[in-house]
Amino acid sequence: MQRFKCKIAYDGSQFSGYQVQPGKRTVQLEVERALAKIHKGNPVKIFASGRTDAGVHARGQVIHFDSPLAIPEDRWVTALNSLLPKDIAVESTEKAAEGFHARFDACGKEYRYFIYRGKIRSPFERHYSYHYPHPLDIRAMREAAEHLLGTHDFSSFCASRTDVEDKVREIRKVHVEEAGEMLELHFTGSGFLYNMVRILTGTLLEAGAGTRDPGSFPEVISGRDRSLAGKTAPAEGLYLWKVFY
Amino acid sequence: MQRFKCKIAYDGSQFSGYQVQPGKRTVQLEVERALAKIHKGNPVKIFASGRTDAGVHARGQVIHFDSPLAIPEDRWVTALNSLLPKDIAVESTEKAAEGFHARFDACGKEYRYFIYRGKIRSPFERHYSYHYPHPLDIRAMREAAEHLLGTHDFSSFCASRTDVEDKVREIRKVHVEEAGEMLELHFTGSGFLYNMVRILTGTLLEAGAGTRDPGSFPEVISGRDRSLAGKTAPAEGLYLWKVFY
Repeated sequence: MQRFKCKIAYDGSQFSGYQVQPGKRTVQLEVERALAKIHKGNPVKIFASGRTDAGVHARGQVIHFDSPLAIPEDRWVTALNSLLPKDIAVESTEKAAEGFHARFDACGKEYRYFIYRGKIRSPFERHYSYHYPHPLDIRAMREAAEHLLGTHDFSSFCASRTDVEDKVREIRKVHVEEAGEMLELHFTGSGFLYNMVRILTGTLLEAGAGTRDPGSFPEVISGRDRSLAGKTAPAEGLYLWKVFY
Repeated sequence: MQRFKCKIAYDGSQFSGYQVQPGKRTVQLEVERALAKIHKGNPVKIFASGRTDAGVHARGQVIHFDSPLAIPEDRWVTALNSLLPKDIAVESTEKAAEGFHARFDACGKEYRYFIYRGKIRSPFERHYSYHYPHPLDIRAMREAAEHLLGTHDFSSFCASRTDVEDKVREIRKVHVEEAGEMLELHFTGSGFLYNMVRILTGTLLEAGAGTRDPGSFPEVISGRDRSLAGKTAPAEGLYLWKVFY
């Protein structure tokens, strides 16, 4: 048996999220289906760095799996891509140590959230960014973002539907980048709670819209209450960008 | 009755092209359906600058229609966008002279063709560009493109399935632009024959691949024979970019 680590990208718009669910089209289902074909019908289970929700994209999701097949690293890329549907692509595959685990060995993640600010909605962006055509005070968003940095209990930014006990996470970087009509929010941290990036984004947007004081962010965090934070921004703007090991 | 001129954009990937066809989802069908709703069920026929094929996109398609409704120009944009599916957007609407015709008054068009050169296919580009991961000699493509400029009989670059008699067209500009992993071909001309931009692109790609001498392009044109030109590049890379009046 050899363990392999794979970097995969997917367009989440046509998936019911990452994780296998009965009767649903998911990323895990499609990758495991392709791997089973390579293994003559034998099931191969994959393990990801974490789940992504329906509609959420990935540029650099990482998975691992074990295989008895002596296929060279780069051949895995070609073999898998020829079997995978067009909305998933394997970017790279490498041998990993026996004990490597895509989820437990991850020491950080980067998510990016794309906000399309064009006045008219773009048919080309409908699945790939959140259309927000209203004025935004970018300075206020950057000021608010500063308060998120560091290690905090992020209960206020976690969907109530979660079974995670420890809600302490470290946010290492939040960048607010303007690129033409696109506003990009880059979040790097030790890990993120369920819906956390989308709630952070929704709350930062309220700071940008002027309906929330950037100076109030420390209280929102310390209150440890989901109702103190802003709306959950929609799935289509979110990308799992990179996993750090 | 007031005639209106509308600029529309659409993602062609989920359409069976622009023109109404029985039982198919087309752009014309969806826009006429939205207009009928605004007109309390009365049909409103639209006229476009030209058709686009299944999978072909538009950034700046132009249509016209007549309406008895006294709706201000900018309200049309909001009203139509609220009724249109998300893969079509109206960008602008303005009053037009009574005799204005989106097709017959067009004096030129720009098409752009997007070629994605990344080594691995991108899930995000699968509907929006042609994946071509092989080496390309951009200088050879530019040299070949020079020969296309001017007024020629473009029979060699026209799909046989056409009922157009006069195949003389003027190409005013061909730009070959590199933008990261994307190669963009910009074609501006008096008008383009059926599949012409896709055949021009396929033939330019052969020049770039080194399988066709850029110096042979004048003979391809003068031969007036479709079999002399290259393959028809796939629909997904093509965008009707702008219509000139």
